[in-house]
Amino acid sequence: MSLNTFGHLFRVTTWGESHGPALGATVDGCPPGIEIDEAFLQQWLDKRRPGQNKNTTQRQEPDAVRVLSGVFEGRTTGTPIQLMIENTDQRSRDYGEISQTFRPGHADITYHQKYGLRDYRGGGRSSARETAARVAAGGVARAALNALIPGIEIKGYMTRMGELAIDRERFDWDAIDGNDFWVPDTAAAPEWEAYLQRLRKNKNSVGAEVEVVARGLPAGLGAPVYGKLDTDLAAAMMSINAVKGVEIGEGMAAARLTGTENADEIFMGEDGPEYSSNHAGGILGGISTGQDVVVRFAVKPTSSILTPRRSIRLDGSPTEVVTKGRHDPCVGIRAVPVGEAMMACVVLDHFLLHRGQVGEGPRGTIG
Amino acid sequence: MSLNTFGHLFRVTTWGESHGPALGATVDGCPPGIEIDEAFLQQWLDKRRPGQNKNTTQRQEPDAVRVLSGVFEGRTTGTPIQLMIENTDQRSRDYGEISQTFRPGHADITYHQKYGLRDYRGGGRSSARETAARVAAGGVARAALNALIPGIEIKGYMTRMGELAIDRERFDWDAIDGNDFWVPDTAAAPEWEAYLQRLRKNKNSVGAEVEVVARGLPAGLGAPVYGKLDTDLAAAMMSINAVKGVEIGEGMAAARLTGTENADEIFMGEDGPEYSSNHAGGILGGISTGQDVVVRFAVKPTSSILTPRRSIRLDGSPTEVVTKGRHDPCVGIRAVPVGEAMMACVVLDHFLLHRGQVGEGPRGTIG
Amino acid sequence: MSLNTFGHLFRVTTWGESHGPALGATVDGCPPGIEIDEAFLQQWLDKRRPGQNKNTTQRQEPDAVRVLSGVFEGRTTGTPIQLMIENTDQRSRDYGEISQTFRPGHADITYHQKYGLRDYRGGGRSSARETAARVAAGGVARAALNALIPGIEIKGYMTRMGELAIDRERFDWDAIDGNDFWVPDTAAAPEWEAYLQRLRKNKNSVGAEVEVVARGLPAGLGAPVYGKLDTDLAAAMMSINAVKGVEIGEGMAAARLTGTENADEIFMGEDGPEYSSNHAGGILGGISTGQDVVVRFAVKPTSSILTPRRSIRLDGSPTEVVTKGRHDPCVGIRAVPVGEAMMACVVLDHFLLHRGQVGEGPRGTIG
Amino acid sequence: MSLNTFGHLFRVTTWGESHGPALGATVDGCPPGIEIDEAFLQQWLDKRRPGQNKNTTQRQEPDAVRVLSGVFEGRTTGTPIQLMIENTDQRSRDYGEISQTFRPGHADITYHQKYGLRDYRGGGRSSARETAARVAAGGVARAALNALIPGIEIKGYMTRMGELAIDRERFDWDAIDGNDFWVPDTAAAPEWEAYLQRLRKNKNSVGAEVEVVARGLPAGLGAPVYGKLDTDLAAAMMSINAVKGVEIGEGMAAARLTGTENADEIFMGEDGPEYSSNHAGGILGGISTGQDVVVRFAVKPTSSILTPRRSIRLDGSPTEVVTKGRHDPCVGIRAVPVGEAMMACVVLDHFLLHRGQVGEGPRGTIG
Repeated sequence: MSLNTFGHLFRVTTWGESHGPALGATVDGCPPGIEIDEAFLQQWLDKRRPGQNKNTTQRQEPDAVRVLSGVFEGRTTGTPIQLMIENTDQRSRDYGEISQTFRPGHADITYHQKYGLRDYRGGGRSSARETAARVAAGGVARAALNALIPGIEIKGYMTRMGELAIDRERFDWDAIDGNDFWVPDTAAAPEWEAYLQRLRKNKNSVGAEVEVVARGLPAGLGAPVYGKLDTDLAAAMMSINAVKGVEIGEGMAAARLTGTENADEIFMGEDGPEYSSNHAGGILGGISTGQDVVVRFAVKPTSSILTPRRSIRLDGSPTEVVTKGRHDPCVGIRAVPVGEAMMACVVLDHFLLHRGQVGEGPRGTIG
Repeated sequence: MSLNTFGHLFRVTTWGESHGPALGATVDGCPPGIEIDEAFLQQWLDKRRPGQNKNTTQRQEPDAVRVLSGVFEGRTTGTPIQLMIENTDQRSRDYGEISQTFRPGHADITYHQKYGLRDYRGGGRSSARETAARVAAGGVARAALNALIPGIEIKGYMTRMGELAIDRERFDWDAIDGNDFWVPDTAAAPEWEAYLQRLRKNKNSVGAEVEVVARGLPAGLGAPVYGKLDTDLAAAMMSINAVKGVEIGEGMAAARLTGTENADEIFMGEDGPEYSSNHAGGILGGISTGQDVVVRFAVKPTSSILTPRRSIRLDGSPTEVVTKGRHDPCVGIRAVPVGEAMMACVVLDHFLLHRGQVGEGPRGTIG
Repeated sequence: MSLNTFGHLFRVTTWGESHGPALGATVDGCPPGIEIDEAFLQQWLDKRRPGQNKNTTQRQEPDAVRVLSGVFEGRTTGTPIQLMIENTDQRSRDYGEISQTFRPGHADITYHQKYGLRDYRGGGRSSARETAARVAAGGVARAALNALIPGIEIKGYMTRMGELAIDRERFDWDAIDGNDFWVPDTAAAPEWEAYLQRLRKNKNSVGAEVEVVARGLPAGLGAPVYGKLDTDLAAAMMSINAVKGVEIGEGMAAARLTGTENADEIFMGEDGPEYSSNHAGGILGGISTGQDVVVRFAVKPTSSILTPRRSIRLDGSPTEVVTKGRHDPCVGIRAVPVGEAMMACVVLDHFLLHRGQVGEGPRGTIG
Repeated sequence: MSLNTFGHLFRVTTWGESHGPALGATVDGCPPGIEIDEAFLQQWLDKRRPGQNKNTTQRQEPDAVRVLSGVFEGRTTGTPIQLMIENTDQRSRDYGEISQTFRPGHADITYHQKYGLRDYRGGGRSSARETAARVAAGGVARAALNALIPGIEIKGYMTRMGELAIDRERFDWDAIDGNDFWVPDTAAAPEWEAYLQRLRKNKNSVGAEVEVVARGLPAGLGAPVYGKLDTDLAAAMMSINAVKGVEIGEGMAAARLTGTENADEIFMGEDGPEYSSNHAGGILGGISTGQDVVVRFAVKPTSSILTPRRSIRLDGSPTEVVTKGRHDPCVGIRAVPVGEAMMACVVLDHFLLHRGQVGEGPRGTIG
């Protein structure tokens, strides 16, 4: 993982700015022979795409992905896969005024301090638009995982938005895809929508918590001690724009538990070891146990709001910033497919790493 | 970051098992000309060393670090620094019975499943003893940072242990080093001690939350978008044994805030930009702002407890595990110097990365 | 360096096949603030471009490079630079017949054996067309080097083509750009041309030797012991299609010399140490001395020739292969700008690595 | 490959100086379950060890390797393997006088210029003593290869020493281990010895050429386009002290050949494709063909000679250097096991890389 590349063997390099001609991902290390077409990738981009309902930004970006290399006659060849998404709805004029101003909560000021110059149009490289490239790469990872780990399922959903949190008692896996918030509770969605519209009208935004689950992984994935599965998941999720916290299984709440409460006791099931609970989030010592791998991350409230915030200009003079553009009141919604994409990339990467170091042959069996 | 190596330019590879002849760290990429002696490194190992008070394990390990290479006449030469710590208090007999049993909450089962064999003595590679090597490497990083960023300060402390949390109103930076729990509140320490001894007597353990602050960093450190400062900090902390969550600044609580609440407004101070608050934890867009960098992580309760937990043996038969050895009732205490070490390594690494890519010359100024 | 990425801090990932829609390079780690425009990059691509004279292939490829990211208002921003070259003159029909046949000397058979499938059109990923992307990336490296190391000069030239070798006594640096063969001897060029046309008429091809010199480097670049300057140059040149040997300074001939013959004696010049000779090729212990860095590499004869060669088909049946397409009789000519590009990338990478690890401040002075 | 680490998945980090307390290699990524004992590793170190006959240096270094981690009950565990060799015969006094002087042909001057300070005792980090650590790591790679690729054989031998070259007509694979020069010709050895003793008496030294062959590799190893098998071999060999050139198969001589001469024609053999010749050195497009992989490298003459050479001191004043220590008159002899070790490391690394990316299942078959 170095600058703009993520992963050990399945390596994703994203490139591009929000208002340049295009952005994309260079995907290296994908196994050969995987069936991929643009429609398969496009479905994940469509899930992330803005402008689909009134709860997200009204920008219209088709976010059509093109595969420029690495796929021949519908199959990956083992060579780099270039995924390009052209930027079409740029409206540079909306952003012209910020070239001299630092928006609070944005990377404007740190990019300036670090690099001495920045593409100020829409955040440039620091725009969440970069995550479209991640989602495209995640689509490649999903295709490979479907071929390599039959039955694997990766799904994200919102577990909190400001004051609202899901009720774990009412958790419905099948409800997730049926509402605009990806909440696992059909009945809750209207309340979430009302809450968000109220915030938007108040010229405000709100944070969110997203959970991503990988189901059906084999035991044994993860490379201790610095390429642990949870280590790489933490890095993957923290690298997403606006993320401020990452949890595995019990997460920060583990600090409140005692040893007897936190223990996941082990039983012998029909197909191997089973556990009484999953406080560990499916990872022990950095290696998957075969249970669900559970990651949660918090996204801060959108910094671009219509309520004025105090800031400074390039020359140090004070100013007030009101960010007018078309912004999501809760970026957490669109962070769901991004979190899924990162999970897919990390899991595939560790599958390949494990296969490389340990092989496919018989490993440690139990019973 | 790959398997057992951490870092981009300042690269730390740890090696060794808890009951082998020795363990250590191979540190590559340290700048030349840095004054280092074993006493400087030893002070940090002593801070982590077990057996110092009744709140940690009573094992006696001197954890004396030897510098085998890379330092000549008291200064680093720019070549790899080998740090070796011999294992002296091993008592292998304590652990013999676990060769056929998987301790719940430990990596015994996943190491077995992944590798097909494991050094079962004391957890082997998955033992928290590995963190001694991190602390030694962190000492090297601290020495380099002191030379390269005069005035930098890196300090960790506990913010929660089970039901007890610090009172932010009573936060006293100078109290941290004056008590066994590294809590920033002299008055609170006795209560923490009583609580922990009660848990120990009840054959239980407890989780903890540790916060690490880096003070005095320049703005501009961090390499978007996959080598962000917070990304690497998240990976660094999550790679520590037993850590289940990592937060930057506001952390998971950011999910509960609105945009107006979360905004760190910007002012022009005498020496550059200043902020009204630090919800961001000193990092915007993955790059340091010049404010305190604030990381928090949760450590799960020690899995080795005297209360029996159900598990299975290698042959699949059921068993009950009572871990008798000499274990910390709260590993969070000794995680404090480990967290500091990881912070030091990450900050130095990013200082070098930034100097490499951007240079020391004039960057973006404000005002 | 991993699969399709080259470099430590200045990292180039090339992507694309000879007959896909496009190919290019994702360049990460370029310092910010470097002036770059497409015309500057295009000049190097034009130098490599086929179809310019009768000594190279008659394919017409404009090889126009587009900068899709990382450059804003004419300057690099420190973010990834995407360089795309669209494939326009593909004539897929020329290549259709080889889908079932393995051309001797080509990677057809090994790509098939490794990946199980291959883009058989024009060699796909293994085509020398990939080097266009390297040349584009090398242009970025040159722009950065010109800014960071004023006066640096990187130049390649042919030193041998089959039976013909240059006469070192007649070496003329200024003649290099004045002939189709990049030979440092104006008078020799006609003989080289006659020789090559004779080979072409005989349906044959020929190997070549290319030398690349970097002039004006500071002493101190190179990262012992596995990231030595010569180590990375050897990897860089050997990674070019058809290269079978790499030499630094005296090269393979060093095996024939005695210690007294090979010694570069050291004197004190006005501006620092000087050497009586440069058998070392400007590198001692993997670190630049400040002399010219001299690399030489051998390119095998083009495998695609009109003289039939025996081979097999996918089904194992015997066949004879005559490669009809439009091929260079000596790929060494067009390897010159590719070697220059790799030199530029390696030198810039090591400049950044050195600046990162050692800094720009005072290092070891002499006298 | 970064500073002192070599390899993608099988990663070797060497550390240590010639006159420090110890040196060694940290080996990460070795597959689990490989049988290893110190005696197996020691045999390769013994092959490289000085002081064994009158053709190499008379220093007495036992070079006993200790395995400090990563091996449990005789098998690798998949965790880092620390290999330590203590320095015992140091005689620091021999080297004291060179602290102010730069020996021609050595890295004294460039280490000083780069780092500003250096361990001047015996070359410190730049001493060829570092290669002992490579040989130890190579032993681990050999053990893994023997388990993973049954029948694989890796062998090096000298092909030239100054004016003397082997006669390919008399090549005898079985003669290699039977003489002090590892020449594949029993009858030639006495002449080589007489030649070398003559040079030594004349206070001179001489260069050499070493060839290393890997026999029994499967087709398909190598990761185009920057992790090609030949690319990594070139880097591996060029990183060895004193190496100035690397060749694959035909090597630099490829520049003299025509396409018809150089073609390795393909036939269908009983077990798969066969070739009429091996100009390619067993590698096409960076991927192994299944033929012998043939690498050759040139080692410059030992720079430490008893004949005075002119140089300068740290203060710039002129001096003459006569290197008195106990030095090999031809370092090429002891470079043979080093070359073998690097070959073993590269081949294992690519076996793992291939298994990771492509897997062990059916790949492209022919016929």
